[in-house]
Amino acid sequence: MEMKQKHLKKYAILLPRLLALIATFLAAVVTATSHQKASILTISFEAKYSDSPALKYFVIANIIASIYALLLLFLPLDNSFWRFILVPDVVVMMLLSTSVSAALAIAHVGKKGNYHAGWLPICGQFHKYCDQVTAGLAAGFTGILIYLLLVSYSFYSHLYHPIFV
Amino acid sequence: MEMKQKHLKKYAILLPRLLALIATFLAAVVTATSHQKASILTISFEAKYSDSPALKYFVIANIIASIYALLLLFLPLDNSFWRFILVPDVVVMMLLSTSVSAALAIAHVGKKGNYHAGWLPICGQFHKYCDQVTAGLAAGFTGILIYLLLVSYSFYSHLYHPIFV
Repeated sequence: MEMKQKHLKKYAILLPRLLALIATFLAAVVTATSHQKASILTISFEAKYSDSPALKYFVIANIIASIYALLLLFLPLDNSFWRFILVPDVVVMMLLSTSVSAALAIAHVGKKGNYHAGWLPICGQFHKYCDQVTAGLAAGFTGILIYLLLVSYSFYSHLYHPIFV
Repeated sequence: MEMKQKHLKKYAILLPRLLALIATFLAAVVTATSHQKASILTISFEAKYSDSPALKYFVIANIIASIYALLLLFLPLDNSFWRFILVPDVVVMMLLSTSVSAALAIAHVGKKGNYHAGWLPICGQFHKYCDQVTAGLAAGFTGILIYLLLVSYSFYSHLYHPIFV
C-alpha cells in the first residue's frame, strides 16, 4: 500500500513535468520549422522564424525550458534539489512568459499590421507560415499554463506547509 | 534601541517599495506622454504610444504595479498579508516583465525595422518620440530589477527561514 502511494506521488510530480516538456518541445520545433516561400510578381520571398529576433528568442526560451524539464525527469525524487524547485520553476516561467509576450507582439503586427507605422500585415502572403507560428505560440502558452500550475502548487506548499517539499 | 531596530526594519521593507513605485510610475507617465508630429511632404503624421497594443499594455501594466506599490506603503507592517507578499510580488514581476518584453519587441522594429517583412524603421522621422519611449522602457526595466531583488529576498527568507516573514 505504501509502495503504491510512493508510485502515485512519483507520477503526480513527474507527469506535469513530462507534459511541460512535450509542450515546450513542440513550441520550439513547430516555430523553428515554420517557413514559406511566396512570389510577388517575379520576385520570390521567403518568410522564416529567424527573420524576427522575437521569434528567435521564443524558440531559444522553449529549447532551454525543454532541456530543464528533461533533466528533471531523470533527477531522483529524494534529491534535495526538489526542495528548492520553486526558484528554477519561477525562472523558467518568467523566461517562457517574456518570450511568448515578445513573439505575440510581433505576430500581432504580422497578422494585423500597424497602420500608424506603415507596417503592412504579411499573413496574407504567408498564410501557412503564420498558421504554423500561431500553433507554436499555442504550444508555448500551454507550457506556461503548466508551469503556472506547478508554481502555484509550490507556493501553496511552501506557504502553508513549509516542511513539505 | 529596539525602537531603532524596528524603524530600520520598516525602512528596509518600505524603501524598495517606494523606489519600485517611482520607477513604474515614471515608466507609465513617460511612455504615455510620448507623442510627436512629423510632416512628410505635405502630409502630417503623429506617432503616439496608443498606436501600438504592446505599448498600451506596457503603460497599463506599469499603472497597475504603481497602484500595488502605493497601497503597500500604507499597509501596516504587522498585517498578515506581508507573510504572503511573495505571491503578489511574483505576479506583479511577471506582469511587468511580459509588458517590457512586448514593448521591447515592438520598439526594436520601430528602431531597426524588419527588412524581411518590409517594415521600415520609424525612429528616423520620430526621433523625440523614440527617445521618450526608450526612457520609459529603461524606467520599466528598473522597476523589474527592484521586484527581482524583492522576490529573491523573499525566496531566500521562505526557503531558509520559513518562519520569518
